[in-house]
Amino acid sequence: MTYQAPVRDMMFNIEHLSSWPEVTALARYADVDQTDAQAALEEFGRFCTDLIAPLPAVGDTAGAQFDGSKVVLPDAYEKAYTQFVEMGWQSLAHPIEHGGMGLPRVVGAAATEVLNAADMSFGLCPLLTDGAIDALQLSGSDEQKERYLRPLVAGQWTGTMNLTEPQAGSDLGRVRCKAEPRDDGSYGISGTKIFITYGEHDLSENIIHLVLARTPDAPQGSKGLSLFLVPKYLVKSNGTLGGRNTVHCVSIEHKLGVRASPTAVLEYADATGYLIGVENRGLEYMFTMMNAARFAVGVQGVALSERAYQHALAYAKDRIQGRAIGVNNPETSSIIAHPDVRRMVLRMRALVEGGRSLCMAAAGWLDLSQNGDVDAAPQVTPMAEFLVPLVKGFCSERAVEVTSLGVQIHGGMGFIEETGVAQFYRDARILPIYEGTTAIQANDLLGRKIMRDSGDTARQFSSMIAETETALKASSPKLQEIAKRLSDARAAFDTSLSWLLDTAIKDPRTAFGGSVPFLNLTGTLAAGWQLARAALAAEAQLIKGQDPEFMSQKIATAQFYAQHILVECGSDCARILGGSSSLFDDASLF
Amino acid sequence: MTYQAPVRDMMFNIEHLSSWPEVTALARYADVDQTDAQAALEEFGRFCTDLIAPLPAVGDTAGAQFDGSKVVLPDAYEKAYTQFVEMGWQSLAHPIEHGGMGLPRVVGAAATEVLNAADMSFGLCPLLTDGAIDALQLSGSDEQKERYLRPLVAGQWTGTMNLTEPQAGSDLGRVRCKAEPRDDGSYGISGTKIFITYGEHDLSENIIHLVLARTPDAPQGSKGLSLFLVPKYLVKSNGTLGGRNTVHCVSIEHKLGVRASPTAVLEYADATGYLIGVENRGLEYMFTMMNAARFAVGVQGVALSERAYQHALAYAKDRIQGRAIGVNNPETSSIIAHPDVRRMVLRMRALVEGGRSLCMAAAGWLDLSQNGDVDAAPQVTPMAEFLVPLVKGFCSERAVEVTSLGVQIHGGMGFIEETGVAQFYRDARILPIYEGTTAIQANDLLGRKIMRDSGDTARQFSSMIAETETALKASSPKLQEIAKRLSDARAAFDTSLSWLLDTAIKDPRTAFGGSVPFLNLTGTLAAGWQLARAALAAEAQLIKGQDPEFMSQKIATAQFYAQHILVECGSDCARILGGSSSLFDDASLF
Repeated sequence: MTYQAPVRDMMFNIEHLSSWPEVTALARYADVDQTDAQAALEEFGRFCTDLIAPLPAVGDTAGAQFDGSKVVLPDAYEKAYTQFVEMGWQSLAHPIEHGGMGLPRVVGAAATEVLNAADMSFGLCPLLTDGAIDALQLSGSDEQKERYLRPLVAGQWTGTMNLTEPQAGSDLGRVRCKAEPRDDGSYGISGTKIFITYGEHDLSENIIHLVLARTPDAPQGSKGLSLFLVPKYLVKSNGTLGGRNTVHCVSIEHKLGVRASPTAVLEYADATGYLIGVENRGLEYMFTMMNAARFAVGVQGVALSERAYQHALAYAKDRIQGRAIGVNNPETSSIIAHPDVRRMVLRMRALVEGGRSLCMAAAGWLDLSQNGDVDAAPQVTPMAEFLVPLVKGFCSERAVEVTSLGVQIHGGMGFIEETGVAQFYRDARILPIYEGTTAIQANDLLGRKIMRDSGDTARQFSSMIAETETALKASSPKLQEIAKRLSDARAAFDTSLSWLLDTAIKDPRTAFGGSVPFLNLTGTLAAGWQLARAALAAEAQLIKGQDPEFMSQKIATAQFYAQHILVECGSDCARILGGSSSLFDDASLF
Repeated sequence: MTYQAPVRDMMFNIEHLSSWPEVTALARYADVDQTDAQAALEEFGRFCTDLIAPLPAVGDTAGAQFDGSKVVLPDAYEKAYTQFVEMGWQSLAHPIEHGGMGLPRVVGAAATEVLNAADMSFGLCPLLTDGAIDALQLSGSDEQKERYLRPLVAGQWTGTMNLTEPQAGSDLGRVRCKAEPRDDGSYGISGTKIFITYGEHDLSENIIHLVLARTPDAPQGSKGLSLFLVPKYLVKSNGTLGGRNTVHCVSIEHKLGVRASPTAVLEYADATGYLIGVENRGLEYMFTMMNAARFAVGVQGVALSERAYQHALAYAKDRIQGRAIGVNNPETSSIIAHPDVRRMVLRMRALVEGGRSLCMAAAGWLDLSQNGDVDAAPQVTPMAEFLVPLVKGFCSERAVEVTSLGVQIHGGMGFIEETGVAQFYRDARILPIYEGTTAIQANDLLGRKIMRDSGDTARQFSSMIAETETALKASSPKLQEIAKRLSDARAAFDTSLSWLLDTAIKDPRTAFGGSVPFLNLTGTLAAGWQLARAALAAEAQLIKGQDPEFMSQKIATAQFYAQHILVECGSDCARILGGSSSLFDDASLF
């Protein structure tokens, strides 16, 4: 059982859901058309099927190993990474001026999905490099860009994010890592960072660590953090590598999943670092990287879900067991004929395609926000930022559910490691945790993205959904039914939003007690909305006679999502509005 | 972090929810009182805390190992099992006439929870032995009982269930294992059985395999299966062990969880077996064992959930991180002060206590069904049988959710294996699969337990809940609010039930497409009902001034369950009634 990149569905998303006309109207994408996107995804898909998709079994068994001084990855990883760099895949969605292919972020998101579906342990390395590239582009000096960007874009060097310390996980204000200014303008970085993904390895010639640390006179808390670039090997002014910097791996973690991705404890012992931007604005710069990473983690959720779905579908078609209920056939049948197996497979598909559509739509907004004329379209950036916690929260939590369904469809075989699907379930479990837990995403959604403009963006989100409902109501009966479910789910959102806006001012604790149910509700609605848009586009294509099988399935998936998943929004609304007394009234509880 | 048996809550359940007065009115429990139950559970709790609770880390790392001829468990398992047998704990809920302590099943269920919370890999061995004892008691000949029961009850010998073959998982009609009659009255058993829990090990002197096989002239399908007793070592008429039987372990599985529990492939090569009961009724006898095992798997779900809850609660109180929203305290605080962590901890507790109450209530019905005067109370057995798939389905699926929340509360530390909570999440994943998947439980609920009496038992279940609502409405405002949520959930059940009864006759496939949502709905309602009964009992105790802290918490848990979990029933009802067109209309989907 191997993996095939779902390029057909990705291209449908790009064409119909990702604001493609607006994105390709941007100056920087003036030369890009859909043919380029499709060609890149197809070629990358073949590359991943052949070279990356076999890795998970290898990487999970061998794991990343630390021998006391260096981290050793399985040979197959080194070979695959060399090929990945040779083909230039790291550069896919990076600017041409830094050596990139210059494709839009929406194509980059699709490629990230393909790579992480093929192997998430492998995919984490380029994902972190992408984040470092983004941060340097936005906040680095010209000299830093000149020296570091091109090898990062080429994948010759890789990047890391160094935030967490033992006492500072979700609460970055407690970061203690120190940065002592030196006479030559560099800083001496000292301290311990934990949970550093690909913090040490030999895949690449160099590793560029982006590190949050505190200068001697910095203010307390998160307002006193600065961002530093700390290379594993110092880089001479001509770009060649110099001496080994004094940052070293102390140990790596033994994890539930993504076991070939080394999660390092790094010790900085007066390591040479370079300030990025200005002092004390490190958290702001890191947020650039973190937002890109949060978006990418949502995409990883779709990726693992798609991989699990492909396995489960193949098994459900192949495995013969029992006679299907209500089918006039005395013979035993494939288990996909059993009503509940069919339900589980369809649920997986609806969550995969819903998640993908949400990612691709959000990627379009992000591209417009970063490269468009924000003065001409001031609503673009708030909407892009509103969608990021939904992408991260929804796609990561649903990946746990989808990979669990994948195990369930396999029955007893699903629990046997050699089958391979238990690994997806283990790998997926980190997604709702890293780059900010689901609760952190929920706080970001409610506390920043909604409260900062008193709900304006959230109401705009709702009114865009209402427009989709209007279009659905003017379509076929199937789409009219979707409109009804979407409308009910949106009503649950509107009711919750009003209540939260009222409550958050006078009783923040009570409001935030409903923050995760609200994130669930909003993410579920957002993905359902995108599938409803997909159904509209598919019906229009059907009328034109385009690809009827694909288009019918797209409508069927949207219908399943509406009937089985959008209906969950009501219970979240009930929790938000009616669940606070049991949360907080009884102070004696613990 | 160790484990403490929740004896206080168990005794509350025994006293108020388990039909204790009726159970102890049975002749066989005439001498049992609550003091006996409490003393046994407290002593067993201490035993498990000291000797069993340290095992999971050992067993998970070392795993069960197969050396080509025998299965080797870690030394600590051998020592613990020896102690377990010396203390006589296997016998706790078995009849005095076979050497047991003679405690009721409800106490046995509590003990099963404690043992499996301490270590599920260890607990599986006595669990299977319990099943073999039940099957022999009900279906064995006097001679078989005489020869095999006493050492099984003592735990000196252990038991197994042999159903599955590579081509026969959920579909037992495809079992091919052969039983050739011999002149001496025994049978020669030949074939391969897979997924045999504790199918081979050296913890006990002997292993008694109960095996489904087919005699030469047996009818096709599941009506041609007979049940055989196949000992690892043959047993002489004086009870001493004779020669090694020709049943051998070929390999064991490498699993996602419960890694110290050996899951064996057994090869029967003309092994000596003894018919249990009469030919071709094997499946019926095996169902006795399977129902006991299904109930016990539900209890295992509560067990793992409780263990995960104890870890998560301790961590949430201990871990300092961030300032809690809406609390007037500038200091950083324990994460339990954060609204969403509090929500997750309370959700875990509500699901643990709801599941426990459902198990304990069902155990009471099972005791009355097996030992009471069924002619005098004909509704008892159907109700007990109605509850078994709910116990299994609800508690196993919720264990996956609860152990996942346990990982989430730990944040990044939850993903590190040494923390220990990832193991509970891995261990839990087998629960919705073995002893019949969730879909099998749902088919059992709808296809047998409901349709066989045209919904009479289901309607009786609903009317008992209505009685509880009436009592709640006559109580305090908190309980009145619980009544409202319970009533809404019951309405969702009643509506779904009517629709399913109508639809199952004319369009079974459509009805069974809603079977798992219906199992979820019914299990969620059943546990919420038991917590509502618990709240009533707690309020009555509060009025008497009994144990006010415990009783207030019990009411708070019931309130949380009503506000946050009972509200899910509506979406399942929507799926059942409105979800079939997207499931079946599009035949081209796969």
